[in-house]
Amino acid sequence: MTITQRKLNLNVGINTTGYLGHAWPYRTGTRHDINDPAYYRRLTELAHKGLFDAVFFSDHPALMTDPEGRPFHTIDPLILCTALAAQVPDIGFVATMSSTYNSPYNLARRTQSTDIVSGGRLIINIVSSFNPNVAANFGSEPLPQRHERYAKASEFLDVAKKLWASWDPAREGDVPEGRFWDATSAHTIDHDGTYFTVKGPLNVPVGPQGHPVIAQAGASEGGIDLAARHGEIIYCNILSRPAGRAFGEKVRDRARAFGRDPASIRIVPGLVAIVGETRAEALRKHELFSGAGSEDGLIARFIRENGIDPAGFDPDAILDAERFIPDPNRLLAVGMGLGLLDLLTHEKLTARQVVRRSEGHHRLVIGTPDEVADQIIDLWADGTVDGYTLQPPRAPDDIEEFVAKVVPILQDRGVYRTRYEESTIRERYGLPFPEGTTRPADRPALSRLA
Amino acid sequence: MTITQRKLNLNVGINTTGYLGHAWPYRTGTRHDINDPAYYRRLTELAHKGLFDAVFFSDHPALMTDPEGRPFHTIDPLILCTALAAQVPDIGFVATMSSTYNSPYNLARRTQSTDIVSGGRLIINIVSSFNPNVAANFGSEPLPQRHERYAKASEFLDVAKKLWASWDPAREGDVPEGRFWDATSAHTIDHDGTYFTVKGPLNVPVGPQGHPVIAQAGASEGGIDLAARHGEIIYCNILSRPAGRAFGEKVRDRARAFGRDPASIRIVPGLVAIVGETRAEALRKHELFSGAGSEDGLIARFIRENGIDPAGFDPDAILDAERFIPDPNRLLAVGMGLGLLDLLTHEKLTARQVVRRSEGHHRLVIGTPDEVADQIIDLWADGTVDGYTLQPPRAPDDIEEFVAKVVPILQDRGVYRTRYEESTIRERYGLPFPEGTTRPADRPALSRLA
Repeated sequence: MTITQRKLNLNVGINTTGYLGHAWPYRTGTRHDINDPAYYRRLTELAHKGLFDAVFFSDHPALMTDPEGRPFHTIDPLILCTALAAQVPDIGFVATMSSTYNSPYNLARRTQSTDIVSGGRLIINIVSSFNPNVAANFGSEPLPQRHERYAKASEFLDVAKKLWASWDPAREGDVPEGRFWDATSAHTIDHDGTYFTVKGPLNVPVGPQGHPVIAQAGASEGGIDLAARHGEIIYCNILSRPAGRAFGEKVRDRARAFGRDPASIRIVPGLVAIVGETRAEALRKHELFSGAGSEDGLIARFIRENGIDPAGFDPDAILDAERFIPDPNRLLAVGMGLGLLDLLTHEKLTARQVVRRSEGHHRLVIGTPDEVADQIIDLWADGTVDGYTLQPPRAPDDIEEFVAKVVPILQDRGVYRTRYEESTIRERYGLPFPEGTTRPADRPALSRLA
Repeated sequence: MTITQRKLNLNVGINTTGYLGHAWPYRTGTRHDINDPAYYRRLTELAHKGLFDAVFFSDHPALMTDPEGRPFHTIDPLILCTALAAQVPDIGFVATMSSTYNSPYNLARRTQSTDIVSGGRLIINIVSSFNPNVAANFGSEPLPQRHERYAKASEFLDVAKKLWASWDPAREGDVPEGRFWDATSAHTIDHDGTYFTVKGPLNVPVGPQGHPVIAQAGASEGGIDLAARHGEIIYCNILSRPAGRAFGEKVRDRARAFGRDPASIRIVPGLVAIVGETRAEALRKHELFSGAGSEDGLIARFIRENGIDPAGFDPDAILDAERFIPDPNRLLAVGMGLGLLDLLTHEKLTARQVVRRSEGHHRLVIGTPDEVADQIIDLWADGTVDGYTLQPPRAPDDIEEFVAKVVPILQDRGVYRTRYEESTIRERYGLPFPEGTTRPADRPALSRLA
């Protein structure tokens, strides 16, 4: 706890038509919105009106060509965030990018550049790609094993951190007469590791946040290791209080083991919120937006997705947690399956109950605006989570609704900001400034040349 | 010639303190300008006031740490251009990027993204990196040979062009009831070449220009091949009319041999313009901005840089062209050395004359604003060049001076625009729309969903 009262952190995902693949028929807009920069500007302005910490772009560098689905990742997130940051003040930007298909030097340079041009508003969500559809766009080599992917991602971030700190103009001494600068303010990093050999220095200096805030998702053991080593904002799926507490302890314990202060980690899991005038209306919206159409449809989908024999299945019988241990070698992100297992390990639930507890692998909160606010505050109040990354089923509609109906309640209860205060995301999240670099406020006054 | 009168094209380079490494002591500003996005915005607004076609960022992904020099490439060009395009209307952006250290999929996606968010104002200057300082930031592998670099760059652009055209929403037929889109509007490219294996499609659709305009620099045989195959805007160093005519014919002949319409190529070489109230004042500014200090200093530099024995050297004797054939294996770009050779091949000049004909390897024009305008129009009027890429010795000062003093003369003479008309750079340069994609104006009206 700092002197200022602890506040709820909220990010909001704004990919294409919204988070849920089947909700688009119920949204406002045209299909061309998904590639229209003006649309993303409207969504970001809406998020700014709602005083969100940041808008969040997930990513996948391949076109999803399912004729029954819709493209979910189009305009490059970092490019889009850079343009939006020039148009919309205050709000932060989470840009997802792959450590598998970028070089550390280019990625460190680009992200530090966006952090500088946005005035310290960039969060980077580093993912290690594992999808064959993505791999096919980047050559013919086989995908690395999961373990190696995470080891490589961790070294990737080690290199990026060295690069981000490699040129700090605040280190300049007196610049001799006739010289433009003190070149000793930049030093090589001479990294020679298992996966990368990078000399440096970076040709972009330390930014307003030292370096961009690092977000990390992934709940497999390798993912938790990476989060504990490098993650500052953890995006994950937490479906219940006990599961959330266990996850938070695991990440923080491991961070401590790596010599990190666990207070330098914020946990902001995904959240699907569906509000209605009544709880019944919200339940009906859930049935529609999920594509299942009805409660029976939700249960049928649950049976299908979990490979359950429908014959004689009782949706009102308590489920056996052990039945839901995900295959660690499956193609989907491991973390996505662990949420359900964690939920059933800690609570005795039926299929009818479970289908209303998560959607799109994230915690689902359904009800009136007051009920939704209650549920959001519930896991935040005791520190199980630091906030949420809202994943609106439909964009713009469910962002509009949340901003108009839920945000004022959160403000009335005193848990959510009523205006933007801090200028950088790092300050807004109360995260420590990276070691080895100089805060902008502590940098020497600029000397005038000529 | 089109129906509209042919106009002079002008770009302007705006890297850090200006083009000439020794001119910074005479510029207005602080050393911190070089990493300040507000500074680049001011320069871009100034270029916009001067109605330039585009601002041009050269690049080099390594920090130049010469304590006697100044950093010349800092904030990532594509990131900076993306932010500036969101802040300054009309003007185009040339972003330099390496085909050696980027994957075609990522580069095609990022650049198409910037083209979309800027409304069709991106020009990409693709370079194949060859500097060991750059290579050291990207691993430990030896640099490829020059020939292989160009072959790889050419295939890189082949792949990028296929990707840029791979998803064209204009190809959508009637979208069946209950579906978001017609997925057949996107197709794989299944590229399997010498250097790249890329499946596609790109997850960014055809942009406002079809694809970004492609700039190309490089005057070696490999560079000219690449320009003839892919270049739409050619950046080069042309020091005289005969050299320029020979270069233009060579590029256009080779383009024809590759089956391209040579009218789809614009030649806009670099130009260093130094204006004064009198020619004498401009000559003195040249001596200062070059760092040579005097005419004798310019001649001494010429002797040194060309490895001439100073003993008995007569600066007023006609130079022998053959003495200036560059070593094709040297580290510097071959094209940079060819300019001088071409100049001396076509004109009989002394060292005293030559040092006033080029600066920073580009054509140098010195004099009063009228004299500078005359020299600019001279090579443009008969089609030797289509325009110039101004490389101001000092930024912002020499851009301000050019905009205030030379632009009005060019306008008075009727060779330069008096307002922006076309919205995309492709239209402004009169370049053809890429085949296989649909112009925005020809795309079907958008149908409203839901």
